[in-house]
Amino acid sequence: MKELGSKVWAIPAGRIPPDSTGREPEFNSRDELCLLNATGEEANLEITIFYADRDPVGPYTLKVEACRVRNVRFNDLIDPEAIPMGIDYAAVVESDVPIVAQHVRFDSRRAEDSMFGSLGFAGDG
Amino acid sequence: MKELGSKVWAIPAGRIPPDSTGREPEFNSRDELCLLNATGEEANLEITIFYADRDPVGPYTLKVEACRVRNVRFNDLIDPEAIPMGIDYAAVVESDVPIVAQHVRFDSRRAEDSMFGSLGFAGDG
Amino acid sequence: MKELGSKVWAIPAGRIPPDSTGREPEFNSRDELCLLNATGEEANLEITIFYADRDPVGPYTLKVEACRVRNVRFNDLIDPEAIPMGIDYAAVVESDVPIVAQHVRFDSRRAEDSMFGSLGFAGDG
Amino acid sequence: MKELGSKVWAIPAGRIPPDSTGREPEFNSRDELCLLNATGEEANLEITIFYADRDPVGPYTLKVEACRVRNVRFNDLIDPEAIPMGIDYAAVVESDVPIVAQHVRFDSRRAEDSMFGSLGFAGDG
Repeated sequence: MKELGSKVWAIPAGRIPPDSTGREPEFNSRDELCLLNATGEEANLEITIFYADRDPVGPYTLKVEACRVRNVRFNDLIDPEAIPMGIDYAAVVESDVPIVAQHVRFDSRRAEDSMFGSLGFAGDG
Repeated sequence: MKELGSKVWAIPAGRIPPDSTGREPEFNSRDELCLLNATGEEANLEITIFYADRDPVGPYTLKVEACRVRNVRFNDLIDPEAIPMGIDYAAVVESDVPIVAQHVRFDSRRAEDSMFGSLGFAGDG
Repeated sequence: MKELGSKVWAIPAGRIPPDSTGREPEFNSRDELCLLNATGEEANLEITIFYADRDPVGPYTLKVEACRVRNVRFNDLIDPEAIPMGIDYAAVVESDVPIVAQHVRFDSRRAEDSMFGSLGFAGDG
Repeated sequence: MKELGSKVWAIPAGRIPPDSTGREPEFNSRDELCLLNATGEEANLEITIFYADRDPVGPYTLKVEACRVRNVRFNDLIDPEAIPMGIDYAAVVESDVPIVAQHVRFDSRRAEDSMFGSLGFAGDG
């Protein structure tokens, strides 16, 4: 399945909920980036974070091994710098092999959680 | 990344929840339009709002600076006129450079919030 | 915008939640079909409902006026027959002009509602 | 409608919530795979499950009859082996005829449920 996915993905609606309720870590509020590399080659990713009022920050580098998934919480992206909580951001993910990327938000600020899951926008072309 | 996205987006399922519970503004019910301009040029947007029983209204004009995100609550679109709450609408977003658009609904009418996030339909072509 | 959308849409994950809590009709559990016709011509739709263990039922016919949205609750589709609640179904929407279709589920079975919103699959081609 | 859909789908964000509250089976936490076969031929599917730290497992074989939907809970996929709960996985679905696939998560770990619904990524080409 060496062509399953896209080499460029955009996640436009980032915002890490700043508070949480419930047991850690499974009920922590978060933005997750869910990545599938269904190819036979390791994927080398460069993630750029865009903000409303300052220049983009990056690249955040990440590997996804061949035939593996990798689930990253955006607040674990700390090099070159952490993403502030509670503010709007977007992520552009570039990979050297095709991958599939989904954005899942889990918001537990008010005891009973809410969530959404949205595929990224596949920008390959 | 001058070609990441589309110049036309459709958001079909608009309806601003008319009530809210919890602290303002973070728990206000809302429809959000999350925009990413990953290009090096300012994006000039024209948004048209479609209704069930009257002619479309617009354009609402908006800029998204180069390499920036912009998150707009639909109820903050007031010129030429505000979008009524609690009724069905759709938005068509046209931009002079490619952008990526996502619709996020946050509904706090009943104490524990619910939400969805859905990419717009990319109508470029 | 005479080409915005697709003439065929698939909504694979239908299931009308069988119970509700809260004030009618705004907190009724439901599957909604949100339709945007951004063209200058009336759209004539034929909807076919697919089931797990019986033949498809349809067509359900529906019009969406030019430059209008139309939001239909699936449980309001009653001719040729109502869709049973609580069972799996899918919808295929065919239109004579391009439209955009989104599926929104609102589930209020347990006091605090949950929901999702997902674009249909655009099957034009 | 013999060409509606794709023969390859990726579901990147799998994780079966490990706990539930409420009446079984309708409030059980789960990941669902919602499949529509709108063609006139039986669909023969092979599903491969990808993990973060081990080799992919599969194929899980499944049939969807002609003109039918089929809704499968991922935790009912047990041959060649069950998918562990609470860990990240992805699914790649391959079919011999075009189908449409959606991923729905229903999470009832904390009394009031949350959910998302996201089309798979159509990898046909």
